[in-house]
Order: sequence, then structure tokens, then C-alpha cells
Amino acid sequence: MAREIGPDRVQTGDAIPPRHQTDWSGVAPVRPLALVRPRSTEEVSAVLRLCSAHRVPVVPQGGLTGLAGAAVPCADAIALSLDRMNAIESLDAAAATITVQAGATLEAVQQAAAAHGLLFGVDLGARGSCQIGGNLATNAGGNGVLQFGMMREQTLGLEVVMADGSVLPMLRPMIKNNTGYDLKQFFIGAEGTLGVITRAVLRLHPAPRARATTLVALPDFDAALALLGRLQARFPGAVAAFELMWRGFVETSLRWQKLREPFEAAHPFVALVDVVGDDEAVLRDALEGILGDAMEDGITADAAIAQSHAQAQAFWKIREATAELPVHMHPPINLDVSLPMRAIGRFAEACRAAFDARWPAHHSLFFGHVGDSNLHVTTDGISIGGEAEELERIVYAQVAAFGGSVSAEHGIGLHKKPYLGASRTPAELAVMRAIKQALDPHHLLNPGKVFDK
Amino acid sequence: MAREIGPDRVQTGDAIPPRHQTDWSGVAPVRPLALVRPRSTEEVSAVLRLCSAHRVPVVPQGGLTGLAGAAVPCADAIALSLDRMNAIESLDAAAATITVQAGATLEAVQQAAAAHGLLFGVDLGARGSCQIGGNLATNAGGNGVLQFGMMREQTLGLEVVMADGSVLPMLRPMIKNNTGYDLKQFFIGAEGTLGVITRAVLRLHPAPRARATTLVALPDFDAALALLGRLQARFPGAVAAFELMWRGFVETSLRWQKLREPFEAAHPFVALVDVVGDDEAVLRDALEGILGDAMEDGITADAAIAQSHAQAQAFWKIREATAELPVHMHPPINLDVSLPMRAIGRFAEACRAAFDARWPAHHSLFFGHVGDSNLHVTTDGISIGGEAEELERIVYAQVAAFGGSVSAEHGIGLHKKPYLGASRTPAELAVMRAIKQALDPHHLLNPGKVFDK
Ligand SMILES: Cc1cc2nc3c(=O)[nH]c(=O)nc-3n(C[C@H](O)[C@H](O)[C@H](O)COP(=O)(O)OP(=O)(O)OC[C@H]3O[C@@H](n4cnc5c(N)ncnc54)[C@H](O)[C@@H]3O)c2cc1C
Ligand SMILES: Cc1cc2nc3c(=O)[nH]c(=O)nc-3n(C[C@H](O)[C@H](O)[C@H](O)COP(=O)(O)OP(=O)(O)OC[C@H]3O[C@@H](n4cnc5c(N)ncnc54)[C@H](O)[C@@H]3O)c2cc1C
Repeated sequence: MAREIGPDRVQTGDAIPPRHQTDWSGVAPVRPLALVRPRSTEEVSAVLRLCSAHRVPVVPQGGLTGLAGAAVPCADAIALSLDRMNAIESLDAAAATITVQAGATLEAVQQAAAAHGLLFGVDLGARGSCQIGGNLATNAGGNGVLQFGMMREQTLGLEVVMADGSVLPMLRPMIKNNTGYDLKQFFIGAEGTLGVITRAVLRLHPAPRARATTLVALPDFDAALALLGRLQARFPGAVAAFELMWRGFVETSLRWQKLREPFEAAHPFVALVDVVGDDEAVLRDALEGILGDAMEDGITADAAIAQSHAQAQAFWKIREATAELPVHMHPPINLDVSLPMRAIGRFAEACRAAFDARWPAHHSLFFGHVGDSNLHVTTDGISIGGEAEELERIVYAQVAAFGGSVSAEHGIGLHKKPYLGASRTPAELAVMRAIKQALDPHHLLNPGKVFDK
Repeated sequence: MAREIGPDRVQTGDAIPPRHQTDWSGVAPVRPLALVRPRSTEEVSAVLRLCSAHRVPVVPQGGLTGLAGAAVPCADAIALSLDRMNAIESLDAAAATITVQAGATLEAVQQAAAAHGLLFGVDLGARGSCQIGGNLATNAGGNGVLQFGMMREQTLGLEVVMADGSVLPMLRPMIKNNTGYDLKQFFIGAEGTLGVITRAVLRLHPAPRARATTLVALPDFDAALALLGRLQARFPGAVAAFELMWRGFVETSLRWQKLREPFEAAHPFVALVDVVGDDEAVLRDALEGILGDAMEDGITADAAIAQSHAQAQAFWKIREATAELPVHMHPPINLDVSLPMRAIGRFAEACRAAFDARWPAHHSLFFGHVGDSNLHVTTDGISIGGEAEELERIVYAQVAAFGGSVSAEHGIGLHKKPYLGASRTPAELAVMRAIKQALDPHHLLNPGKVFDK
């Protein structure tokens, strides 16, 4: 390998930095055979050709911020890091597209877009470290999904190196392109098991000029859905966030962060809403109208519209209690599931009842990007250890019962492999295996991730 | 077959209606072995199991409005029509989703959505006949792409019957669902070659309350892109149409339809723009501002904002000259290509030069959903016959030279099979074949479409 692509591309033994031995999932570190850090698509292709010839497995690595253990090496594999392929190759402001190498960080892409008054549609907490390749391989979601969709929706083209080293140059930047199978779709969300992504053409959006934030108290879950519907009808394509917090979450957040109750009374639900547009005053007026009507109709119980950036930040602070999770839980458990939208309320009730039965002194915390059908579940007050797995089993059993997904956006990796069957039928798993067999017949790409052979 | 699913489901010989023997592409009719019209997923599954056991090929048929010959039967195959599976099964207004059988027409879905104040994001001329299954299998585009994307972007879940009769029930209605490979993506745009789509869960959108239309004269192609950029920045997610017409198209449209010049002078380009929102007066004001600035900056040469629905319709009439194509051309040739957005102007120039050299007396007509990177190319004044193929060869050679796609939205079918190589590399075609082999090892589903074995 060192001969083919140069010795400075390959590290072995103690020279392999610990950060390449695990990701953010808490999975125990594993030292790979070697860490290879190619500088070009040609080098990635050469590495894969060689590995294919010698039947050496390859674990692609992005920024290693994954929460499912999907980029954790295996001892008999090389780790293939894309971190040196981090160029922003070009940006076409008129067409609103950007072409980047897979190792570019999400933040670098966001900044390149911002320099042209544009916005990249995906944003998430790990932006400074996670890479576009990792975002694509996990079909990352995050903060912008309600408005822009997930990584899949931002993707116009991909360059992918297959297990045998062949290169698929699917980089045409067109929105419409129906010429046979849309192969790039196969690699998005495949967690590095079908090919190594080396470049991408992504869509950009105009950056909104104004934003207004409101915090809304709601009597029940259906009221939240009704409010979301009204907001989306009034601000089509411009509801940028709709974060719903159950009372238990709000209470814990206030306690952890020593914040004051946002409303005079304690309400069962609080929604945090951002809308975007051209003019802040116009947005605030419109919000006032819609919230007034909703109040009259009994949909909302109370509401406050932020009158300044500082006030908007104070509202968001309640939601950002999740940053405190690592202080209160070791490891922090924050389950990421999705459900048919109108089942979310009943699902949370069912989980709470099961938790209450098992852990009478706990607080269950529910919050989520409800507009994306995404719910996060965690607890305060159970001692994490063996109980974490019990918590997961309880939640995923309810997910299966309600026809939901055990992974909304974090992926399967190693971590959720045992639960994949809760969201996928045997026939679906058989087709996944057939695809894997067809594209990676020797099972060299990220083996043992997502599903077993 | 008649035994397994009932004799009323199967027609043979002269009983097979002519409309099931070809589609709208102009490909010569072919009578299949039998026409089978199942009423349920279970029946589709039984048919495919039987066909698989006896190695009988199956050609899925939707509304037969396809323009690429993809649903034209083969003489040794059965035609499997979904037309009896046309139920709108459920609509969840709060979650803005609809669940339908694949044989439901696009119009039926649009109407069901409208009954709840909602909108389905895909619309196209064949709406009354084309079916959701056919829309999905061709990843149809049409009028709403700029705002909502293509069929792929509307799709939350699919139920698919595989070649061996096994059923993939991927009907979970969640926006976020990262649990292994997103299998439904494989069937969208696959033109019936990988599986038969039997049901779908689709997204709906709030119907906009107001719409404003403007007709804008532009000095050159780059000015059109600049205007589009400004409009999208000012109306994020709310530019519903941006149709660009080259002068030759405008001239021919006026002549064919006996309309008056829309502006005092003849301009090289005319853009037809729809924006949507909450209030028509507000939209018109905003348009006026943006067009005034654009005029000052030399981006636009002239502009008119429709002051009534009738005036908006009059503007649209110019674009709708395409409805006249069948009167002036037999068969009507209307090539559907896509290009990197900023190359579209130069591409059209290159095509025009090549046409001028070959057919000095012709008029080349260019128009397109430029915001979708989609261009339509046709001509007035060449005698169609052997020359149609020559025209296609000229255009697709330019498509290849400019890195475009030979099919923006109509698909490959039979018709564009010879040109697929202009937009796809041998490595990409090899992966398509591997996928086909994995999912349909006996090549029973729509054989000979998209690519040969
Ligand atoms: C603080 C924090 C907040 C987060 N918030 C969110 C959130 O809001 N939404 C969300 O979806 N996720 C979130 N995540 C999870 C994670 O950051 C994302 O999934 C991210 O997309 C992973 O990118 P990465 O480059 O770090 O990938 P890695 O962890 O390095 O790898 C993830 C997977 O992608 C594969 N991979 C990486 N690069 C490539 C490539 N070039 N080609 C092929 N396969 C490749 C790996 O093999 C692995 O299977 C968060 C994580 C943290 C730590
Ligand atoms: C007047 C007119 C205007 C048009 N405008 C547009 C436009 O703006 N945009 C656009 O994209 N297209 C347009 N088209 C093309 C065509 O209507 C669309 O592609 C439409 O989506 C085809 O649907 P259908 O049900 O008629 O499919 P068919 O023609 O019956 O079949 C098309 C393909 O889909 C497959 N198929 C059908 N049903 C299924 C199923 N249930 N499962 C698996 N495979 C299936 C068939 O095997 C075939 O490969 C237009 C056509 C006409 C006649």
C-alpha cells in the first residue's frame, strides 16, 4: 500500500492516532491494521483495488462524530480516512450548487455558501468535525430538515469508488436526470457499506434575510399538530423549526440550567418555532395573527414572540438542555426514533407508562423535531449501565408496535443492529443483503455494520 | 393464472384492448401474451410468483401516457396493469400524507388533497390518465419541480412486489427513517424493471392562498439566471414556476396561436414566473420592487405583472404552444434534456448552430423549466421522418459534450436506450446491471427496457 500511494499516506501500529479508533458512540476503540489517508480519488481507487485483490476489509471514516459506531474500525481491516480530501472545489452561485471533496467538514461547506449569501440546508451540532462524506453515508438530518429535507435532498451528484476500485463519476449537477437507476441514491445512508464517497455536488439555498422565533404553550399533542399545520399553510416552505417539548423535558431543562418558567402556568407541551422570510416585523405580525386565532380556537394556551435576538436565544436555551445531557448521564442516552406523525403523542404516553412501571423515580424526557416525525427519548434519574439497554429494548418494542423507525437520523452502525428487525421485515433485509452481495461480493466495505452477512 | 387469481382478471388474444398495446411514445403496438389486471397486492404477488416459476416476463403498465415506450408490452410477456388498484386508501391532513394504491390517477390524488386544502407537489399534462405507479416508476417531474421536487421527493413509503412475488411493505410514513438501505429509492425511476409498485405513502403540502404571475423580457441567458437567483432569494421556496422561452419559441408560439407580441420590442428571452404566497397584492408589490431593481441593474429589459387571473392565463398561453405541437409535427418531437444550469445558454447556441447548418430553413425552438436544469428542444420547419432521428443524434451529442442528461424526466424506456451511454459511463452501466441481476435474476421485469441484458 505504502508503495502504491506513498508512505506518508499510511500509518500503522502505535502511529495510528486514538481518534481514528472509535467514534462518538461510546463503542470501545479498536486499532485497525492500518490507517490510510489518501489525497485523491485515484488514490482511493488504488487502495480499494489493492484491498480487493488481497481481500482486506476497509472501514471508511469521516469526521468520526457518528453516534452508532458505524465508523469504528475492525482489527483485520484498514481504516480509510477521507480527512485529507477536504477541498471545496467550486461553487456556482447562479445555479446554487457547490462541488466538494467528501472530507470537507460540514462547517466548511456552510461557510463557503455563506460567503455567497447562500445557505447549505443541513446543519447539526457536530458541524465543525463531521464531514460531508459522513453526512451522506448516514443521510444526516439535523436542524434544517423541516425546510430542506435531509442530506439526500441536498444531493445532485456523487462520485463513488466501489469495492473493486472502479469509480462512478455521477457528478452531473442537474436537478432532473432520469437516465436509468439513480445510482447515487444507493450510497446515501448506506453507512459506507456499498462504496466510498469521494466527491459530491450539493444544492444550496438563498439565505433568509429575517427570522422570527416564538414559544407556544399547548394543551395536548394534537394541538401541536394542528398548530404546525396552520403555520405551514401560512408560511409555506418557511417554517424553519418546530421543536416540541413535553412537560417533563421542559421541567428538567429549567432545573438543569437554572432557568425561569417561560409561562405563568406549567403547560403539558411547549413548542419552539422559527419562521423565516424577508422582514422580521412582517414575520412577527403574521405570527401574532396566527397565534391569536389559535388561542381563540383553543389550540394554544399561551404564546410569546421573541422581540429581540437575545430573547430568541433565551427561548432556544430551553431546547438546548441536550447539551447538558453528558453532565447528567454517563454515557448520555438520547434515543433517536421516528413515528407516524399522529402516533407520536400516544407513543410517548406508552413509553412513559412503561418507564414509570420500571423506574418509579425517573423523569422521562421527550422532545423532538415533530414536524420531521422525529422524536428523541431520554430519561433523568435512572442509573445508566445495564439499564440503558433495558431502556432501549422498551422504547424499540414500542417503536415496532407503533410502526415507527428505530433510527430517525443516527443510522444503524453497530449500535442498533440488534434492533433493525423492529423496523424492517425479513423480505426487506433479504433485498438489502442481495444489494450488498451484488455491489461488494467479498464483503470488504465496512463489514459487520448495519447487518451481518 | 386465471385459476390463481380469477378469470375476470385475465384477458387474452383479441380481448386485449388496443390501448394496452402501446403508450404515448409512438412506438408500434405489440400484443402481449395476456393482459392481467389484479385487484390487490396479494394478486400481484400471486401473478409474479407464477410468472417467476414459469419464467414468463412481465411488463408493468400504469396509465400508458409514458413518452419513452417503457410500458409497451413484449409479445412473449404478460402486461400487468395496475388500473384496478386505484383506491385512495387514506389521507392524514394533520401529517399531510396520503396513502394510495399505485393505480390511482395523479388527478385523483390531486383532488383528494384539494378536498383538504392541501396540494400534491407533482402536476403534469397527463394528470387525468397517468397513474401514481407510473409517475413513481418514471420519477415524474412536471410543473411543480422548482418548488417541491420530483416524485422521489414526494415519497415517504412504497409497497413493492419483487420479481419472485415477495412483498416489500416499506410503507412507514416517516420523513426521517435511516434503517439500512433506503430500498424504496431503488424502485423510483427504475421504469418497472426492478419491482412492481403497488402502494405509496406520499407527502402533501398546504395549498398556497395566492399566486402572482409575471412575464419578463431578458437580454441574455445569464440575465435569466440572475433574475431567478434574485426571485428565489426574495421568495424562498415560493417561486412556483420559472419558464424560460427563447425568442424562436416565442415567435413560433405567437404565430401558431395568433397572439400579439407581449412587449413593444422583440427580446432574446422571455421568462414566465409564478410566485405563491398568502396575499396577491403583497406578492405583486414584492414583484414590482424586485423587477424595478432588476431593470435598473440591466438584468431585465421589460416586464409585465398580471393584474388579473385572465391576464395571467394570457401570459401562460404563450408557454402552452406545446399543446399545438401535434398539429404542426407528426409525430411531435419534443426532446427533454437537462444540463448544468449555467451551460444551458451555450448548449442551446450550439444546437442552434448545428441545426442551422443542417436545416437552413428551420426554426429551432428552445424552452424549459430552467430552474430545474431542464430544457426542451424542438423545431418548426424540418420534415419529420428519418430526420427526427438525426435531430436526436445532434442534440444528444451536444448533451454529452456539455455533461448533460439525455432524459430530464421522460425516462429511457425503449426510446432513449441507444443514447443512455451519452449520460452514463460504462462503470455506471455495469452497476445498474449488477443491481438488476441481484433483484431480478431471471430478467422477468420489463425486459429490454432502459438497458439490454
Ligand atoms: C454533537 C453531535 C450532534 C449530532 N447531531 C446530529 C443531528 O442533528 N442529526 C444527525 O443526523 N446526526 C447527528 N449527529 C451524528 C453525526 O454527527 C452525523 O451522523 C454525521 O453525519 C456523521 O459524520 P462523520 O463525518 O462524523 O461520519 P463518521 O462518524 O466518520 O462515519 C459515519 C458513517 O459514515 C461512513 N462514512 C464516512 N465517510 C464516508 C465516505 N466518504 N464514504 C462512505 N462512507 C463514509 C462511515 O463508514 C460510517 O459508517 C450528531 C453527532 C454529534 C457528536
Ligand atoms: C400530455 C403529456 C404530458 C406529460 N408531461 C410530463 C411532465 O411534465 N413531466 C414528466 O415527467 N412526464 C410527463 N409526461 C410523461 C408521462 O406522463 C409521465 O412520465 C407519467 O409519469 C407516466 O405515468 P403512466 O402511469 O402513464 O405510466 P406508463 O406509461 O403506463 O408507464 C411508464 C413506466 O412506468 C412503469 N410502471 C407503470 N406503473 C408501474 C407500477 N405500478 N410499478 C412499476 N412500474 C410501473 C412502466 O412499466 C413503464 O416503465 C407527459 C405525458 C403526456 C402524454
